Amino acid sequence: MQKIVSFGEVMMRLTPPGNQRLIQATSLNILFAGAEANVTSALSGWKLNGCHVTRFPDNTPGLAAIAWLKHCGINTEYIQMGGDRLGLFFVENGAMARPTAITYDRLPSAFSTIEKNTFDWNAILDDADWFHWTGITPALSQGAADSLAAALSVCERNNIKVSADVNYRSNLWKYGKTPGEILEPLVARSNVIVGSENDTRNIFGFGAEQGAENVFVSISSQLMKKFSSIKAVISSNREQRSASHNRFTGNVWDGQQLWQTKTYDLEQIVERIGTGDAFIAGYIYGQLQNWDIQDSIDFATAAAVLKHSVEGDVIFCSVEEVQEITKGNTSGRIKR
Amino acid sequence: MQKIVSFGEVMMRLTPPGNQRLIQATSLNILFAGAEANVTSALSGWKLNGCHVTRFPDNTPGLAAIAWLKHCGINTEYIQMGGDRLGLFFVENGAMARPTAITYDRLPSAFSTIEKNTFDWNAILDDADWFHWTGITPALSQGAADSLAAALSVCERNNIKVSADVNYRSNLWKYGKTPGEILEPLVARSNVIVGSENDTRNIFGFGAEQGAENVFVSISSQLMKKFSSIKAVISSNREQRSASHNRFTGNVWDGQQLWQTKTYDLEQIVERIGTGDAFIAGYIYGQLQNWDIQDSIDFATAAAVLKHSVEGDVIFCSVEEVQEITKGNTSGRIKR
Amino acid sequence: MQKIVSFGEVMMRLTPPGNQRLIQATSLNILFAGAEANVTSALSGWKLNGCHVTRFPDNTPGLAAIAWLKHCGINTEYIQMGGDRLGLFFVENGAMARPTAITYDRLPSAFSTIEKNTFDWNAILDDADWFHWTGITPALSQGAADSLAAALSVCERNNIKVSADVNYRSNLWKYGKTPGEILEPLVARSNVIVGSENDTRNIFGFGAEQGAENVFVSISSQLMKKFSSIKAVISSNREQRSASHNRFTGNVWDGQQLWQTKTYDLEQIVERIGTGDAFIAGYIYGQLQNWDIQDSIDFATAAAVLKHSVEGDVIFCSVEEVQEITKGNTSGRIKR
Amino acid sequence: MQKIVSFGEVMMRLTPPGNQRLIQATSLNILFAGAEANVTSALSGWKLNGCHVTRFPDNTPGLAAIAWLKHCGINTEYIQMGGDRLGLFFVENGAMARPTAITYDRLPSAFSTIEKNTFDWNAILDDADWFHWTGITPALSQGAADSLAAALSVCERNNIKVSADVNYRSNLWKYGKTPGEILEPLVARSNVIVGSENDTRNIFGFGAEQGAENVFVSISSQLMKKFSSIKAVISSNREQRSASHNRFTGNVWDGQQLWQTKTYDLEQIVERIGTGDAFIAGYIYGQLQNWDIQDSIDFATAAAVLKHSVEGDVIFCSVEEVQEITKGNTSGRIKR
Amino acid sequence: MQKIVSFGEVMMRLTPPGNQRLIQATSLNILFAGAEANVTSALSGWKLNGCHVTRFPDNTPGLAAIAWLKHCGINTEYIQMGGDRLGLFFVENGAMARPTAITYDRLPSAFSTIEKNTFDWNAILDDADWFHWTGITPALSQGAADSLAAALSVCERNNIKVSADVNYRSNLWKYGKTPGEILEPLVARSNVIVGSENDTRNIFGFGAEQGAENVFVSISSQLMKKFSSIKAVISSNREQRSASHNRFTGNVWDGQQLWQTKTYDLEQIVERIGTGDAFIAGYIYGQLQNWDIQDSIDFATAAAVLKHSVEGDVIFCSVEEVQEITKGNTSGRIKR
Amino acid sequence: MQKIVSFGEVMMRLTPPGNQRLIQATSLNILFAGAEANVTSALSGWKLNGCHVTRFPDNTPGLAAIAWLKHCGINTEYIQMGGDRLGLFFVENGAMARPTAITYDRLPSAFSTIEKNTFDWNAILDDADWFHWTGITPALSQGAADSLAAALSVCERNNIKVSADVNYRSNLWKYGKTPGEILEPLVARSNVIVGSENDTRNIFGFGAEQGAENVFVSISSQLMKKFSSIKAVISSNREQRSASHNRFTGNVWDGQQLWQTKTYDLEQIVERIGTGDAFIAGYIYGQLQNWDIQDSIDFATAAAVLKHSVEGDVIFCSVEEVQEITKGNTSGRIKR
Repeated sequence: MQKIVSFGEVMMRLTPPGNQRLIQATSLNILFAGAEANVTSALSGWKLNGCHVTRFPDNTPGLAAIAWLKHCGINTEYIQMGGDRLGLFFVENGAMARPTAITYDRLPSAFSTIEKNTFDWNAILDDADWFHWTGITPALSQGAADSLAAALSVCERNNIKVSADVNYRSNLWKYGKTPGEILEPLVARSNVIVGSENDTRNIFGFGAEQGAENVFVSISSQLMKKFSSIKAVISSNREQRSASHNRFTGNVWDGQQLWQTKTYDLEQIVERIGTGDAFIAGYIYGQLQNWDIQDSIDFATAAAVLKHSVEGDVIFCSVEEVQEITKGNTSGRIKR
Repeated sequence: MQKIVSFGEVMMRLTPPGNQRLIQATSLNILFAGAEANVTSALSGWKLNGCHVTRFPDNTPGLAAIAWLKHCGINTEYIQMGGDRLGLFFVENGAMARPTAITYDRLPSAFSTIEKNTFDWNAILDDADWFHWTGITPALSQGAADSLAAALSVCERNNIKVSADVNYRSNLWKYGKTPGEILEPLVARSNVIVGSENDTRNIFGFGAEQGAENVFVSISSQLMKKFSSIKAVISSNREQRSASHNRFTGNVWDGQQLWQTKTYDLEQIVERIGTGDAFIAGYIYGQLQNWDIQDSIDFATAAAVLKHSVEGDVIFCSVEEVQEITKGNTSGRIKR
Repeated sequence: MQKIVSFGEVMMRLTPPGNQRLIQATSLNILFAGAEANVTSALSGWKLNGCHVTRFPDNTPGLAAIAWLKHCGINTEYIQMGGDRLGLFFVENGAMARPTAITYDRLPSAFSTIEKNTFDWNAILDDADWFHWTGITPALSQGAADSLAAALSVCERNNIKVSADVNYRSNLWKYGKTPGEILEPLVARSNVIVGSENDTRNIFGFGAEQGAENVFVSISSQLMKKFSSIKAVISSNREQRSASHNRFTGNVWDGQQLWQTKTYDLEQIVERIGTGDAFIAGYIYGQLQNWDIQDSIDFATAAAVLKHSVEGDVIFCSVEEVQEITKGNTSGRIKR
Repeated sequence: MQKIVSFGEVMMRLTPPGNQRLIQATSLNILFAGAEANVTSALSGWKLNGCHVTRFPDNTPGLAAIAWLKHCGINTEYIQMGGDRLGLFFVENGAMARPTAITYDRLPSAFSTIEKNTFDWNAILDDADWFHWTGITPALSQGAADSLAAALSVCERNNIKVSADVNYRSNLWKYGKTPGEILEPLVARSNVIVGSENDTRNIFGFGAEQGAENVFVSISSQLMKKFSSIKAVISSNREQRSASHNRFTGNVWDGQQLWQTKTYDLEQIVERIGTGDAFIAGYIYGQLQNWDIQDSIDFATAAAVLKHSVEGDVIFCSVEEVQEITKGNTSGRIKR
Repeated sequence: MQKIVSFGEVMMRLTPPGNQRLIQATSLNILFAGAEANVTSALSGWKLNGCHVTRFPDNTPGLAAIAWLKHCGINTEYIQMGGDRLGLFFVENGAMARPTAITYDRLPSAFSTIEKNTFDWNAILDDADWFHWTGITPALSQGAADSLAAALSVCERNNIKVSADVNYRSNLWKYGKTPGEILEPLVARSNVIVGSENDTRNIFGFGAEQGAENVFVSISSQLMKKFSSIKAVISSNREQRSASHNRFTGNVWDGQQLWQTKTYDLEQIVERIGTGDAFIAGYIYGQLQNWDIQDSIDFATAAAVLKHSVEGDVIFCSVEEVQEITKGNTSGRIKR
Repeated sequence: MQKIVSFGEVMMRLTPPGNQRLIQATSLNILFAGAEANVTSALSGWKLNGCHVTRFPDNTPGLAAIAWLKHCGINTEYIQMGGDRLGLFFVENGAMARPTAITYDRLPSAFSTIEKNTFDWNAILDDADWFHWTGITPALSQGAADSLAAALSVCERNNIKVSADVNYRSNLWKYGKTPGEILEPLVARSNVIVGSENDTRNIFGFGAEQGAENVFVSISSQLMKKFSSIKAVISSNREQRSASHNRFTGNVWDGQQLWQTKTYDLEQIVERIGTGDAFIAGYIYGQLQNWDIQDSIDFATAAAVLKHSVEGDVIFCSVEEVQEITKGNTSGRIKR
């Protein structure tokens, strides 16, 4: 069983039922989620050994968070207990023209107060096949950035494949460093990058070349020139007609060629959150199966498509269900 | 008040709320349903004397099942108590490209262990105007097939109209008989057949004639040639774009002519299950009102269309509400 | 803080969860709503001093109703306690071709049994900037009509702007007076009218002029000719494809010019009720901000568009959220 | 199967979940209940032919009410549709020192506006074995009192046994008649009376004789002297320590002897409403089984005891479960 | 209408349904509560002008908190918006031997980061009749303590009565000051003190005098000797048999005499939280009505008794309901 | 981390909310439970390596069952997938005199159709410290009995401590063998036995010796004489006043001495199911900590006491919380 290690904050997610706004709610549905753990939930559900590394406070919310990750099939043996509080976020499910609105209540969470040596990366990564991180982690605190750097050193030494969703978020990065100075050495140790022009412009200061025919190809090429570690850049192209109706296409640039999937028309979206994480999980899954790029991005895109029909952050669909989509069975005919 | 008798298994249906998958659920919504009883629920709601004949275990799930059928307006006086367990099925509501997924837990249910003489068909059918069965019943067990055959003999003797939804399901038929040998004499005593090419091919071994202009007309004609009892074959034509978006048309072949309805565009489907049963109920209703074929199939199709907007297996819409649809009032304007 | 006063009945609204019909429900969601209070809820949420004037019975439903209005931010200081019962209405949420169905249980409510002098309008309207009423109030009882007339006299004396949603409902008007005789003097004291050809035909006996190019312009012009007090007629144009899918445009006729908004395509409607009230609230808000007509109707229409995505009668969206729509940000992209 | 006919209003009952007060609630649990129908629900659940006679409006709440009665096993064939509205009542579940608080919203309900000839009592009572009424019905309106009188005439003619729970409620009786003048002829045609000193004092103007050793015996003896039709007076003795803790004993006076049950200590009461109705149903059941008085009152008291453990108005316990209590099995040991 | 001003933090309270532990929960009930606001909710419900002063972040949780306070009838006009986050606490409802367990997530909340001049106390207290604070506020931060001191200065100048629940909590007081040095000048400006030996020992370093007959009288006398401002010390005596069963008595020492209430036996407790706040609110209410000490403490104790039967932090019972308890009507007989 | 292995069926448990009967329910709460897995859930929550061995069908209910066990902290690595269906049971929560009623729907479950070699006991038990089984398993089928015998052989060979809850249930044992012939060799390989006179009489044909002073001591002595493997017999003494009120004492006979705990008065029981399993888990925990018998039985009894306050089958209380009870802290005072 291949072992994937992800690293990042997991927060309690609090969501009013249905399309309620928080001011209307007398109860909130809860689960525990984070961009990195969502990827690992998918991979664990697909019967790989998905390990998530994070830190929880040693109190009832922290214990409930661990139980949830276990419920999702995640291997929690490397999780540290400590710190004062669990980060939280409130989600108001959007619909139609009204966007899903997220209110974070993140600092000073148990994860953001980790330090360089909080985790024993040698032990954790000993027999790992893949490591996944996102740009949210180094944006939280110097300690989180340091800890991530330590992990990536071990990955490099052990030849572990690394994927990174650089995911620039302007309302993080409050501890005095710029995204560029922190992310540059981290990306330089990563092999598969999820990124968009918005990310490269804000982090590395470049966008698509003028007159570029294809924005994604342009920024991907530049990224791969800048960072020789990168073997592929992947991205989804999302045309957003409303909170309930999107069009979705997967893309990969491998340095030579643009691989694309069919475009899916996504009407009556159940939940938008976590679809990007399912996409990444799908690509990692394909690569771990040694599928070629086209099969990998097809699986990734189908996983993302399916995730739009599932409530919560986690895909909770099997490999077989995803493969039905890649085979073109999107008619939703009742399965008995 | 006309009396309709239906015969078949009723199971507890367990459904996670909303679009949850079973693995996410901490509670399940319950009701009691079966393809035949769903037809009778509709007819009872339309103020006919709908009697459903089945067998329940004499325990709390069995008693709850009877209470539910009564709630739906069904006459339960002919239901037998006995056997060990109530059949169950789990439904995960699909959405978008994800199909509704049903997990059956059916055997050895109280119904499947009935025998030829479990029911006193002479008494039950004494003053009946219509009898309805589906191909699920004889697929369950020899006893169920025998009991159905006994009922059809009485129908023949009493000149009771018989409708049958032949409904071939490959994962049933496990007791050693082929669908063909069992179904042939049963269909030979039925007057209105719901069927598709999939059914005729798997049961009777024939599909549409080569080069046939219209598949439905072709298989219907052949059915009527083979079984002189059949006076009409009805079918819905469902174009399935996703679990949430279908297009739907009703068809009847009466041996001479193809009767069709307008095609309805069904977006934002609430529930797909039970729509075929509402369709059949609508056609039976029209025939019992002595409406002509076009009015009957229009009503049937409108009933099916409305059912897509109602949660659960039962239509719970009045004759007047169905007729609003046949009049073309599909705009959904608020009714005060 | 500008002060808006609205006047009308507030009832308990009882709604089965999701798309359930009442016969399926074992619980009902409750809130308290009325066409006029819905307008004031929106304006209170937009940080104006919205006062609603009504009458509640002095029992637990009445006290719960006040608590709900306060929760919505409404100033309840002028509400009277008295009478025997709180009016009620049951809502079955429609979907697809099935309309939302409302069953009223309104008489003899505490509000409908008010009399001319129940409220001290001089005190209530002392420092008011705007007064809003609808045609439902004078349709309920002579006492309600008299009380409204008393309020409008004070408005005239104090130069308070008056808006009216004439809102003809044929199943009201049971106390022996015709809509025309009652409404004529009331409209004659109002400045902004929400109305449609259906309203003018049933109340004042005229529709669009023959050969009129634009029905709305024609009936608006006639209204303004008939009532010199009217400075603007506003209306939404709703093309209703199903209960789940509408197209929506805002219109104003100011006596000289037709002001229109872009047309919004509203797919996957969450709730249709209260969208007209949000529309009116939006227009009043714009006028109170001294915005020009185009900005006012754009804001009104955007408010109505957003309201379609929110459960219940109240908009619960901020000015900033509405303005995102007027800026064209209708893509529903996640807001973090 | 013996046939029991009950007559009286059935209302929608709206209850906040748990121990919430109405002002805290955002949803209300609903069911349909009335003192007389509660008795018949119990008897129907005990496999007798329990028919309830009432009148419902022909709208969605009325149809839901019928479905609920059917769910409870009641024969609804004699129910009339008509009138304007369904009566309602709100229940706040009490606990500890806080009483359960009921707010009625009853008038002008479909039932209260019945008239003398609304029901065809000859047909309804044709083959009846028992008739049950309460003092609530004649307290509602002259028409309800007249209709009840008409039913009792037919009972007398047909020798049908009649039970009556005289149940004096001071906040009814608003139509201009006194309880005494109306109830006297009705009680004079009844055979089993449920009554207390509070009832006799307020209705007939007498309480226990001075110095009477036993209040119940004294008022019962006087009642039987006054009304020769009465064969037994029954009553429960409830010592109420709090809303959650009662002590409960059953009593019968048959004109000669006082029959009593053991006293049950009822801690941790789940629901107090409907326990008196279960008590009466139990006594009627015993009498219909031709049990002697002691067995009947033992069964009645055990039924009332069990009902305290069930949510809602209906007992939903089988004859066997009640008999476990009469056998002394009150230890609540898990039944597998 | 008398004006009461309370000051303190209000947090979102998150509670699993029923007796669930957090690890079992998939949804949490929410409301907004704080020891001081709970007092003011009670007084507002009793139709006084209860104003609560606090600070909320200007985000969706902050706006929902205001809406909740308004729902409770509280005047929110003096609440400031600002700071980063809303404090939270998780409650696991205890039962039997298992205590209710609270997990706080309080720092760095919008309230705890207030400063001396955040509130304009002269304006707020201009026409106030009473001011209430607890020992939680000065325990949170220097800024909170300073702000409270500023309020008390204005109270002294304006002769506003001041009550204080000193409420020592050892897990607060983390900003470097001792409870004694901070609380001494604050208590010195307060008139009614709620306190226990646990409080005086931890804050002021003294317990009951050796050999004291009555611990409460001893510590109260010492408190009144130390602080001449104090006119009464009040306290409840709670004998705690389990989380579900307490015995409860109210006490006042006015410097000369011990006033006590009857002892209430509280079985089947619904909710323990907020009962102490209802007790204080009751005493303040009595004093504002100019009731004598016995009537005030009787009302206070009855309010606390009733609160044990209501879910959540707020009493939601009327003055009349509390007075039923003081009259001895604790039998919980159904109120129709 | 010590490793405990338990072996037995895990079923889906379906429970109506609150005190509802199944006939009242429209939703059922679900979880997955079995007498043996409940023990292991407790031990896993207490931070031991609790492994449960069972068999689930490879369908959605089976996968949900695994996720639930993981959520409880159980090591699921040895669970087999196979068979046709997941066993089920319906629970109606009792209250007062009404017992909790369980309806099983168990056969032919995936577990009951296991065979002798379904599990690789050598691998599973390789490094185990304790093995736990109950008399339910060998009662289900010959295959289950054989598989258990195979496990016990390995335990004997590896010197693994074995506990057994013999738990005689008369409605099992349907496959043609008597409890005595099957259980004798199994008990002969077990070291800690949970048993009562009811068990010994039905299984081994002996009860307490005539004139025995203490029934438990008598049957325990006889058991230990008969089976030299047994080192201790443990049992709880439950005096059952009602479903809501029990008295509970723990006992151990070690061959020489009777060890007893204090008697706990359990009022307002939340849930009775699973309390015996918590008791056994507590005793195993104490033994694994090398506590003496008194400390072990005290901990066991405290665990059982606490479990009565928690919904569901699993204790979800920490070692520290249990130890609070053993220290006598049963007052339920709020823990902040």
